[in-house]
Amino acid sequence: MANDSSSTFSSPARKLSLLGLGAMGTALARAWLAAGYEVTVWNRTPARAEPLRALGATVADSAAEAVAAHELVVVCLWDDASVGATLDGADLRGRDLVNLTTGTPEDGRARAAWAAERGARFLDGGIMAVPPMVGVPEAGGYVLYSGSAELFARHEETLRVPVDARYVGADAGQAALQDVALLSAMSGMFAGITHAFALVRGTDVRYGDFAALLADWLRAMAGPSVGTTARQLEQGVYDTEAPSNLAMQVAGNATLLRTAEERGVSTELLTPYARLMERAVAEGHGDGDGTVMVELLA
Amino acid sequence: MANDSSSTFSSPARKLSLLGLGAMGTALARAWLAAGYEVTVWNRTPARAEPLRALGATVADSAAEAVAAHELVVVCLWDDASVGATLDGADLRGRDLVNLTTGTPEDGRARAAWAAERGARFLDGGIMAVPPMVGVPEAGGYVLYSGSAELFARHEETLRVPVDARYVGADAGQAALQDVALLSAMSGMFAGITHAFALVRGTDVRYGDFAALLADWLRAMAGPSVGTTARQLEQGVYDTEAPSNLAMQVAGNATLLRTAEERGVSTELLTPYARLMERAVAEGHGDGDGTVMVELLA
Repeated sequence: MANDSSSTFSSPARKLSLLGLGAMGTALARAWLAAGYEVTVWNRTPARAEPLRALGATVADSAAEAVAAHELVVVCLWDDASVGATLDGADLRGRDLVNLTTGTPEDGRARAAWAAERGARFLDGGIMAVPPMVGVPEAGGYVLYSGSAELFARHEETLRVPVDARYVGADAGQAALQDVALLSAMSGMFAGITHAFALVRGTDVRYGDFAALLADWLRAMAGPSVGTTARQLEQGVYDTEAPSNLAMQVAGNATLLRTAEERGVSTELLTPYARLMERAVAEGHGDGDGTVMVELLA
Repeated sequence: MANDSSSTFSSPARKLSLLGLGAMGTALARAWLAAGYEVTVWNRTPARAEPLRALGATVADSAAEAVAAHELVVVCLWDDASVGATLDGADLRGRDLVNLTTGTPEDGRARAAWAAERGARFLDGGIMAVPPMVGVPEAGGYVLYSGSAELFARHEETLRVPVDARYVGADAGQAALQDVALLSAMSGMFAGITHAFALVRGTDVRYGDFAALLADWLRAMAGPSVGTTARQLEQGVYDTEAPSNLAMQVAGNATLLRTAEERGVSTELLTPYARLMERAVAEGHGDGDGTVMVELLA
């Protein structure tokens, strides 16, 4: 049946509806229009649709009308609640609904069930790009997708037009989960960068030279750390592979904290990780690797 | 005078003394010996010197004897206090003392004054490498040096033998400061990585695929973030250059915290940076960039 249904549309229809014209939705619409796609748009505040009309978009008068216009319906709204509210009166039967609205994994799963009840196939997306990266393949952005594999296979070519696409599994929550995990890791890195600049500020450091050192250092350290953690979690063995075990890392960390104090810089961004390391050592993991802390967080 | 004195040794003497044979000191000694250098070593526990004797090192009976053996004296000891204790009875007059012992910026500055009082030139080093990276140029490790520019120029070729060398200024505390700043930033990144893996653990994520995504993501985000922060600090202007200002980042952060709660993962590693962002917004910086948080930490 799936094959029969697909064969009716053996080449992807180069048309879609897009609901939600914030900075990201607008960037997506522009990329599809620039690629010659037929795009029907809708936005709660109609004025935001006008520049797209000038570029060839059809502007729908209501969300339901936009949904009715094309089989593929992409929504990029403010939050998950606005997805439910916006699509409330629309007939979703037979639609392929792609949700690019930011949400949690549970939002994605619940929205998948909600879409299924209404007769739609559903794909949830987590956008790993900012609007200026859309339509610029060399910027390296991408969207993580999870949910209906059939929907993804059917529309992959279309979905890849504005920004690269990566399918990460049938569980509709997985895209949001990995999206949030990547952003959370970045938030930790940003905290570290903030602390680093606070330390060197007010000395005779040359910011440009230090920035080059710091970017190189973080780029060099990211891969080995992430790779070791993944392999150890997969194998369930957290023995020391790093040159220094957790107890040595706790000892070394004292220099980081003392330096912050010398410089009059708050240690607030460093202490939670320092305390987690200390807790891991106190619980008997001092001669192992830091991977055990992944378990201690849950 | 400096030129006259240098010309006496117009090519670097391929010999040095090395005090402290922990994992790092031993790796350094091996690299110099492998390059054909004449190396006199000393360690508080003599047994650790024996494998190096077999490789051609001269083993001194005391720290003072090691210091007397060569003009260039490298110390790589447990902590700054052990540098003072170890060199207490040695005659440092005319020595070029290179301190690779981990310490704070104030340790470095105080040790530079201490060395000057004793008639030695002084260079402080912060090692951005782990022992397995020593003697392996393609591993990308290096040592940050600060203090006597003359000492660095005179021995640069020798210092570059085990691991690359970068001179960062005359202030003897600068090497330790930048070393600690890089390690602090890495600690933040590791905290983020730990949280990210805690989020995806126990789902049907494929660790290897996720690790590749995460490493790529952190590498891609490190450079722009560090570069923007450095440029803004230099110019003293923290207007928004990023696609989202601080207020939008605080709003977006709620999804990270909610996802952690959904997954039963502690938010302890995320909250300090979230709180600092909230504080920046509360103090009126919501429509600016995150760089202002560098100031708020001090």
